[in-house]
Amino acid sequence: MLDIALEHMQQRAERPIWQEIPDRIKALNDTPPAAGMPLDAIVREVRDHVLPYTLGNTHPRFWGWVHGSGSANGVIAHMLTAAINANMAGRDHAPIYIEAQVIRWMARLFGLPQGASGIMCTGTSSATLLGLAVARQQALGSDVRRRGNAASRGLVAYCSQQAHVSVVKAIELLGLGSEALRSVPVLDDYSMDCAALAIMLADDIQQGLQPFAVVSCVGSVNTGAIDDLNRINQLCGEAGIWHHVDGAFGALAILSDNLKPQLEGIEKADSIAFDFHKWMHVSYAAGCLLVRDGELHRQTFETSAAYLQNETRGMAGGGPWPSEYGIDLSRGFAALGVWFQLKEIGTAKLGSAIYRNCLQANWLGERVSSNPLLELLAPVTLNIVCYRYRHAALSLAEHNELNRHIVVELQCRGIAAPSTTTLHGIAAIRVCIANHRTRKTDLEVLLQATVQIAEELLATHYGQQSQA
Amino acid sequence: MLDIALEHMQQRAERPIWQEIPDRIKALNDTPPAAGMPLDAIVREVRDHVLPYTLGNTHPRFWGWVHGSGSANGVIAHMLTAAINANMAGRDHAPIYIEAQVIRWMARLFGLPQGASGIMCTGTSSATLLGLAVARQQALGSDVRRRGNAASRGLVAYCSQQAHVSVVKAIELLGLGSEALRSVPVLDDYSMDCAALAIMLADDIQQGLQPFAVVSCVGSVNTGAIDDLNRINQLCGEAGIWHHVDGAFGALAILSDNLKPQLEGIEKADSIAFDFHKWMHVSYAAGCLLVRDGELHRQTFETSAAYLQNETRGMAGGGPWPSEYGIDLSRGFAALGVWFQLKEIGTAKLGSAIYRNCLQANWLGERVSSNPLLELLAPVTLNIVCYRYRHAALSLAEHNELNRHIVVELQCRGIAAPSTTTLHGIAAIRVCIANHRTRKTDLEVLLQATVQIAEELLATHYGQQSQA
Repeated sequence: MLDIALEHMQQRAERPIWQEIPDRIKALNDTPPAAGMPLDAIVREVRDHVLPYTLGNTHPRFWGWVHGSGSANGVIAHMLTAAINANMAGRDHAPIYIEAQVIRWMARLFGLPQGASGIMCTGTSSATLLGLAVARQQALGSDVRRRGNAASRGLVAYCSQQAHVSVVKAIELLGLGSEALRSVPVLDDYSMDCAALAIMLADDIQQGLQPFAVVSCVGSVNTGAIDDLNRINQLCGEAGIWHHVDGAFGALAILSDNLKPQLEGIEKADSIAFDFHKWMHVSYAAGCLLVRDGELHRQTFETSAAYLQNETRGMAGGGPWPSEYGIDLSRGFAALGVWFQLKEIGTAKLGSAIYRNCLQANWLGERVSSNPLLELLAPVTLNIVCYRYRHAALSLAEHNELNRHIVVELQCRGIAAPSTTTLHGIAAIRVCIANHRTRKTDLEVLLQATVQIAEELLATHYGQQSQA
Repeated sequence: MLDIALEHMQQRAERPIWQEIPDRIKALNDTPPAAGMPLDAIVREVRDHVLPYTLGNTHPRFWGWVHGSGSANGVIAHMLTAAINANMAGRDHAPIYIEAQVIRWMARLFGLPQGASGIMCTGTSSATLLGLAVARQQALGSDVRRRGNAASRGLVAYCSQQAHVSVVKAIELLGLGSEALRSVPVLDDYSMDCAALAIMLADDIQQGLQPFAVVSCVGSVNTGAIDDLNRINQLCGEAGIWHHVDGAFGALAILSDNLKPQLEGIEKADSIAFDFHKWMHVSYAAGCLLVRDGELHRQTFETSAAYLQNETRGMAGGGPWPSEYGIDLSRGFAALGVWFQLKEIGTAKLGSAIYRNCLQANWLGERVSSNPLLELLAPVTLNIVCYRYRHAALSLAEHNELNRHIVVELQCRGIAAPSTTTLHGIAAIRVCIANHRTRKTDLEVLLQATVQIAEELLATHYGQQSQA
């Protein structure tokens, strides 16, 4: 069974990046099994029905959305995780110290002071939710836990137009409503227009509202843009409000000495949310929230309950328990996978792999720019390249349809997996290289296939001849 | 490495249930490793520094808090999970259909109608948070996503005094404030006093507030009490409000034909939160929310984003995606572990193991009742026994101290792991048997050790002689 797992990882590159899911898999039986079946039969079922139809994010030509590409040690770490079967809510056991170490390592890497806290969670969506809860606690004090949002005269938060939808979802879940989230315009490089932010902040304060947080992007989802952290720190400092960094994938650029200068100012943020399962290739799901003011973090979530009483000795010793820093009382031991990856690969090599992805993106951007059939749609900041195939005879709508169609064909033919997005109304082929297995030849395959598929589709769907 | 994992599981029973954590482990190095190290050295580090100091919830005499005791197939499932490394937010791949199947199986087991939805999450704390968000959506309609809690004249929710602290945390995170959560008194069996609930509901409505949800307990954390679901369904129906069931561990009693009648009415609830990693022994973390009205569930969390566009073909096909039913855009493939457990063991055997735990609890309760040195502190409903050692010469405070001390000693001597709680001011030794490895002889060990340790402590700390 271990062989099947490792074989799957090793051979993933040789199989199509994606295959259509057969109906037999979609129509899985509705009736829960009353009787059991042998374990090896279940493993065979996984081998035949699941493994061939995975998404392909462990394949060298996967660049869709932002998915990490995994690592072999993840198989070992997950195996041990299940054998240990720790609940990481609290209590006194070795796994708790492993997570604490991972948190301290990361706080140190980001340059946060002693006294900073953190908690692992499913991913940046959850981390941002928790971070904004701490921001609200700072704004409203302990009243918020008793009285809720009603303790304020109108909380408002800010993020750029390019911010991830998870910020909206967090604001909604917190009961603030999406209207309480201001969408700040962006500059040509898709980073937040901080001059506009300053004006919006002043306006809201003048109207008697209560700004409480700015969410900045370190690596925006569409183009990898990085907001001006120093300027945002300054504006937040002046307004006395929270600066939360959404660094879902981009924050880990901190691991590369070459990229670190672009993240200057992150060490002064109030909270940082990021994922280990993206650019650090830890197996899903492993996200993290770091908070500069650990005491405020704890005040936001600590509780007391008779059945959770802390003791000075025994299993109920230790502390503070992770459950005091978030909402989960059941927590898996995802920290072990992070610990394995950091220890086996080390920060230097992890940083190099991240930097290599950025160099690859730069190279790809240049190749796109120098190809008259293609158009680069956004500056390449980190590891994301947005481009499209262009044809003089097509309208905007036809261009959009064609380029989305190209991506679907790239996926369905099992060649490569970019995803799509839209920039200023223009559909883009979006290549997010967060993949330590990618080589330049893989990107060559993408470019060639883009042009070839485009010309096929032009001929069959639009009656256009090749431009090449 | 697989051997180490499986050996750890097999030999757990022979080792102390808990050992004090040596300082060398607490003082793990603060500096993130710049260079990597060989994988086998890391595994040895885990073997020597982590495995001996785990909490013991896979040991047959672990009955603390509510922890599942794991299963060997979890090691296989976790291994495959890491090799597949799926992000379960969405997209079209086989793992998505596995989770959908698990959700359908569970909806069917609980008797929910077609059209019910569900989502796996870390645990019941998260599931309750999401369930109450759907309840709020029902109360306030689509306005809530735009305007937040301000769309209401004052939302109020209800749970019993014995409800889990996660309900308070959910209400707080939703921005409603803990004052919006009414604490309903309980009856002698620790279940919710529904007559009191009816009066509180009527009062709040009369005062112009807006009740929106009742959270019932199926298996309260302290004593395993089950609230009167039929009566709560009726009261919620009359008030037009949401009935959310916190069935963290107890809901899975549905798997036992002998216990199922006690859960009558659960099939009419609006949402049900429970954990697979507790009484179903799936490896951590695997919780679940089921929602009767799947469409309302989706309306609460669905979003649109250019970079997440759905397509009719290719990787971006399929749907609805799980991300439309919760807040996470990064989700691990915990469903595989649940699927393995349900397929390997089957619902009948899982139900029998749950029922056996209840019979064991009953038996233990009787043994306690018939022992003049011990006192049973609450009726045994499901699998929880709360008792204390009693001595005629001790005050309440001394009794409380003694019994907490007994539990610490049981743990520190590596004998057994009950936890503690407090009932009407009385400290209880709390034995929650959610453990498929427990046998009656293990419970005998507990009773003998309780009395022996008590008498030792009485002699050394209180100058009292043995009562035996």
